[in-house]
Order: sequence, then structure tokens, then C-alpha cells
Amino acid sequence: MENFIYDNPTKIIFGKGKENEIGSEVLKLNKNKKNVLIIHYGTVDTNETELFKKVEKSLQAEGIQSIEFTGVKPNPRLSLVRKGIQISREKKIGFIIAIGGGSVIDTAKAIGLGVPFDGDIWDIYTGKAATQECLPIGVVLTIASSGSESSNSSVITNEDGWLKRSYNSDCERPVFAIMNPELTFTLPLFQTICGICDMMTHVMERYFTNTLSVDLTDRLSEGTLQTIIKNAPIVVKDPTNYDARAEIMWAGSNAHNGLLGTGRETDFASHLIEQELSGMYDIAHGAGMAVIFPAWMKYVHKHNINRFVQYASRVWNLNIDFENYEKTALEGIDKTEQFFRYLGLHTTLKELGIGNDRFEELANKCRLHDIQNETIGRFVKLKRDDIVSILRLAQ
Amino acid sequence: MENFIYDNPTKIIFGKGKENEIGSEVLKLNKNKKNVLIIHYGTVDTNETELFKKVEKSLQAEGIQSIEFTGVKPNPRLSLVRKGIQISREKKIGFIIAIGGGSVIDTAKAIGLGVPFDGDIWDIYTGKAATQECLPIGVVLTIASSGSESSNSSVITNEDGWLKRSYNSDCERPVFAIMNPELTFTLPLFQTICGICDMMTHVMERYFTNTLSVDLTDRLSEGTLQTIIKNAPIVVKDPTNYDARAEIMWAGSNAHNGLLGTGRETDFASHLIEQELSGMYDIAHGAGMAVIFPAWMKYVHKHNINRFVQYASRVWNLNIDFENYEKTALEGIDKTEQFFRYLGLHTTLKELGIGNDRFEELANKCRLHDIQNETIGRFVKLKRDDIVSILRLAQ
Repeated sequence: MENFIYDNPTKIIFGKGKENEIGSEVLKLNKNKKNVLIIHYGTVDTNETELFKKVEKSLQAEGIQSIEFTGVKPNPRLSLVRKGIQISREKKIGFIIAIGGGSVIDTAKAIGLGVPFDGDIWDIYTGKAATQECLPIGVVLTIASSGSESSNSSVITNEDGWLKRSYNSDCERPVFAIMNPELTFTLPLFQTICGICDMMTHVMERYFTNTLSVDLTDRLSEGTLQTIIKNAPIVVKDPTNYDARAEIMWAGSNAHNGLLGTGRETDFASHLIEQELSGMYDIAHGAGMAVIFPAWMKYVHKHNINRFVQYASRVWNLNIDFENYEKTALEGIDKTEQFFRYLGLHTTLKELGIGNDRFEELANKCRLHDIQNETIGRFVKLKRDDIVSILRLAQ
Repeated sequence: MENFIYDNPTKIIFGKGKENEIGSEVLKLNKNKKNVLIIHYGTVDTNETELFKKVEKSLQAEGIQSIEFTGVKPNPRLSLVRKGIQISREKKIGFIIAIGGGSVIDTAKAIGLGVPFDGDIWDIYTGKAATQECLPIGVVLTIASSGSESSNSSVITNEDGWLKRSYNSDCERPVFAIMNPELTFTLPLFQTICGICDMMTHVMERYFTNTLSVDLTDRLSEGTLQTIIKNAPIVVKDPTNYDARAEIMWAGSNAHNGLLGTGRETDFASHLIEQELSGMYDIAHGAGMAVIFPAWMKYVHKHNINRFVQYASRVWNLNIDFENYEKTALEGIDKTEQFFRYLGLHTTLKELGIGNDRFEELANKCRLHDIQNETIGRFVKLKRDDIVSILRLAQ
């Protein structure tokens, strides 16, 4: 086990009707009643409008003024972030509420980081600058997926070049997250399954590691995956099943709040590859992960067959072939891919309408984990050629 | 799944040599450099003395004055708490460091609650008064057991009547916990195994529940127990095995930080019974739990055989007898008891030197969960007669 710091102060307020308590919760953390920016997608969906009004009303009841801010799209855009920073400064915003999923929360984080930052917010995302200050952010979660509601990271897309970049800092972790599974009942099927894939890969990016002796973190990870595997098909068939939605929602937070990475090196090569993919082709992140992750597994599994056998056995309950461990490892990978397909996701680039003409460009765009050696990932350190090979496997 | 709040802001600083960073960590949270009270047992153990000096020196390096406070015993005493409150007020203490396990941390919590409280601290523990204010507490953990390093509860024993009482409040959760598994290498075997039993029962008190649809919490709980079951025998045979000590230490915190109770009713009847037992006979809490918990399991298992079958199957990997579920349930209970014995713990009152002459007195002393109906526990609501029956099963 490696040394680690685990510091996850996001207060989780979980359950039916909890969004109605947001006013009093904000007041505790915003005693001077500074203006609140409420960010949401701004679609014509009546559920979303109703939820926004509920939040606005709950703040009003505590005497807190709020400003509505909308226009968030999937792969949230830098231009909107810049606009949000400007408005927040003008309106003297002291607290941000994000109503939505990862795109809204990450927009809120980028605005929260940008307001007190004396410089260009994009420099933070490209690694040219850093900051440890962020406006406090409260979340009303409506999409179980990114885990951004209690994570210390955010991802923003710059339309100029379609670069997608992330920033990690404990200062951007939301102060609270209100999680009412009922708010996900009306989520379109496609977004539901993309979210499920996203959270599964958050666990697996941490699970495939070279660090030995991480029993607890392994067991917690395997349990989280088993929970998702049991409940995802229920949610797909019966979208208003409260208990299954609740399991998926709670699993999604745990998948990405840091707990499942404690004591070990994590990988995240697939996320870096997919970030460029969804940046370049504007596809949903979860849809991209369903293609990239199985391809990555196939490409790297020989690096540690035992790890993949453990995964096949403990997560998928497959019988181990003691005369052919690799067969078992490959069965585990196949199960993963088949599960994504069963949910309704594509697992090839072709099915996403993406050709093989820009693989080199994508590989060259990828942000590197190790700049000196020009590699991404830690389980296996991948060079640009390896990235291209993975994309070919994903065709 | 039930609604829940999960709010666990304790910063975990885990790994080798981390105790040397305590000065800078305290400074972040004690910018005005208020005096620090350093609480430890005060035994002649050279490891403990060295550790205390290391902490004192690390504070000095940041220009922070500290006062040493010792004399903590197992089942920590109210008289020492009162003394600590008085000294802290005199010396204008603004931060407390606990070096030790549950007894030291709980003493720190009680002093931390008592200093700003205008009244008698015992009233808080008997439920006559409440407070939501506590001095900030940092922990250097040396015993993996109670989980108090990141829990919101403390237990104090009043020598006047030997009453042991607990108080739960989020304000008493430590602000950080430094967890270096090496600091547990020299822990006597008996304390090591008592700690292991204690943390296992913290999981199980939450696991045996009437709440349905708690898949994730179940899986995380089962994984935590499996981790302890794998690593405890390693620690017993090889006390300086870093990785096994690390798993036990990290599992102990997760067992009691609230995560494994999310979304469900918890029981804790066995803890209430054992609290009186160790209060009356001054035995180690973990040693008492090894006797009480298996007896409780035997007494209540028929209330929900399926739950005990799940436990037997998932935690102990026992084959389910599909023609006789109760047989499987009882095998799981037997496995639990045999595991405690294998570690070296007694599982009968007789072996602890406790007779059957004060069962009624103990049952009458028990603090009630439901005052109106005079019951303890939630999985099964136990009347005083039931408590006596459990004690008889534990003879």
C-alpha cells in the first residue's frame, strides 16, 4: 500500500425531497447572504424548470437573492465559463448552486475557480497556472454519472481547437451535494446508460494498478462494481425504480470521490484518450468510454493477467480456468463489453460514426501524464503508438 | 434505502512517517498558534515517549506551544476528563492532539466538548444536555480499533456507579487523523486482537438491519469484513507486516466513519450491552464484544434467516444449504465465533471471569434506544428479559 491523503468533506444529503432543504443548507455556509448563482442547463424540460423554481424559492425563503445562469451543454464550454465568471463578478456572487450532472457541476467549478483568480481561467486547465481558491459550490444532482458532485476535479472544453482539459484541486470539491434519486427518474435512457458506463470506468481506472496489497480498496471497488452491475439493468427496464436509482446514484459518487483510489497508483489513460475523442467529435463522455475502455483492457491485459483474473472472478463471478488464466482474463473483458452492449451502448468507433482517419491527430493531442517520457497512463505507460493501437482495436 | 446524511470531513493522512508532518498540519487549522494540549497514555513505553517527543518537536518547529496531559486508562474516566477541561481552560488551549487509540481520542473529545460548554460535561453523556461545539482535535493513531479517529462519537466511564455513556455529535469528529501503520507494530497482541474484534462488530452492528435495498452499503460492508478476515491472522503471526497492519488500520476507520451505515437503520444493541459489561467489570471493550456479539447473533438470527445466510455466504464464502437455510445461518455465526477464538479471544463470560449473578443488574443499567417501550436495538427490539437471555447464552 502507498501513502495517501483522503480528504473528502462534501456533505451528502441523500433522499426523497431533500432539494427542498437547500435554502437552509446554503444559509449555514453563506451567513452573510451573498448573492447565489444558480446554474442549470436551461432546456425546456418542465421537470428542470420546476426544480430550478423550487431551489430559487427555497433560497428566497431564507432571504437569499439568486441569479439564474443557463446554456450549459455536454462537454461544457470555456466560452460559457468566461461569461459566468464575468457575471459572477458583476453580481458579487458568493456562492454557486449547480442543478444538473457533470457538465453543469464542472461549469460551476470552473466559474468558482475563475472568479477569485487573477488571470485567464484556461491557463489553469492547461497547467500554465494553478489556484487553491474557489467559491463554495452546492449541488443538486440530476444525473448519476460523473461523480463531480463530490470529486476534486472538473473538465472543460475549449471550442478554439476543441481541446478538453481537466483541473484537479481539493478547493473545487462541492461543500454539499443534494442527491434525490427521484430527480433521475425522467432522465433519457441514453444519458442514464452513459452515466452508468462513466461511473464503472471511474472505478476501473483506479482498479487496474501496479500497487500491491490494496485489499480494502480492491474489495470496496469490486463491491461498487457489483452494485452497479446488479442495479443498472433494473434502472434500464424500470426507470422509476427508486431503490435501483438510489444505488446507482450513491455508487456514482463513491466511484469518484477518491475512496477507491486510496493507497494505490491509478491509471486514467482511457479517460485521457476519451477526452480528446469527445472533444474532437462532441460525443457523450460515457458513450466514448464504452468504446475506449474495453479496447484499452484488451491492449494491456497481458501486463498483469492475475489482476484481470481477479477482476473476472470477483466482479463477474466467472469460474477461473486454472489451466488457462488468460482465457479467464479475456472472459472478464468480454463480460464488460457485453454488459455495455446489453445496456444499449455501442462499443466500436464505427458505430459512433467515427472513422480511422484522425487517430494520429488524436494521439498527438492527448495530454501526457509523463511529459519527459511522453506517456499516458500508469498501469501501462502508453506512447503515442500505443494510443493509435488502442484506437485501432476500438474501430 | 432510507434517506441519510453522510458528512465525514476528517482528513486522513495515511502512511509511513506521517506523524512528522503534524506541526504543519496543526498550523493550517490553528493559525493564531493557540496552545495545544497533547493527550497520551503516559505509560513508560519508550515508543510512546518517543512519539510524544516527535509530536512536541514538530509543533515547536512551527512555533506552537504545547502542554502534555497523561493518565488515560482503558474505559476512559470522567475524573480525568474533568481535570483536562480545567487545565485546558487555565492554559487557554485552542487545539487538542490525541496520541493513542479510542480511550485517548475519546478523552480528547470529552475535553474538547467540555471546555466551551457552560455546565457539567457528564450531563452531555447522560442526555440531560447537548452541545454542538468542540475544540478542534487532531489524532495520531497508535491502535487500530475504535474508529474514533474519524467517528462522531465518544464513550466515557463515570467511576461513580461505573456507568459508561456515549455522546454522538458531528462537532466532535477529529479534523485530521494521522495513520502510520508502523506505529501499531509494537502493540501487544491482546490489544491488537481486541481492536480487530471491535472494528468487525462496528461493521456488523450496521449490517444486521431491517432496511431493504442497501446493496452498495452491504457490498462495502462485506468487503471491509473480508479484508479484516484476511489480514487479521497475518497481523497476529507477523506483527510488523506493514501491509497487513495498513489494511487493518484503514478498515478500522471505514468501519466506524458512518459510510457503512448509509441508507439504513443500524442496531448497536450489543454495544449497549457490552458498554455496561466493561463499565461494571473494567474489561477491554473488544474482549467484551467477542463474547456478546456471537451470543446476540444466536439469539436474533431467526428474525431474518436470509440476512444471516447472505452474511455466511458473502463474508465467509460458505456454501449455502438450499434445503436448510438456518443451518447455513448458524454456520456463519459459528465461523464468526471460531474466528474470534482463533485470534486468541475468549467467547464466553466464564472465560472472562464473569459470573451470572449480576445479569439483571446489567440489564437494568442498559441505556435504552427506545425509552417509551424500554428496548435496545433496532434489528430486534430487545426488552430487559431478552438482554438477560443473551447474557445467559454468553455464559
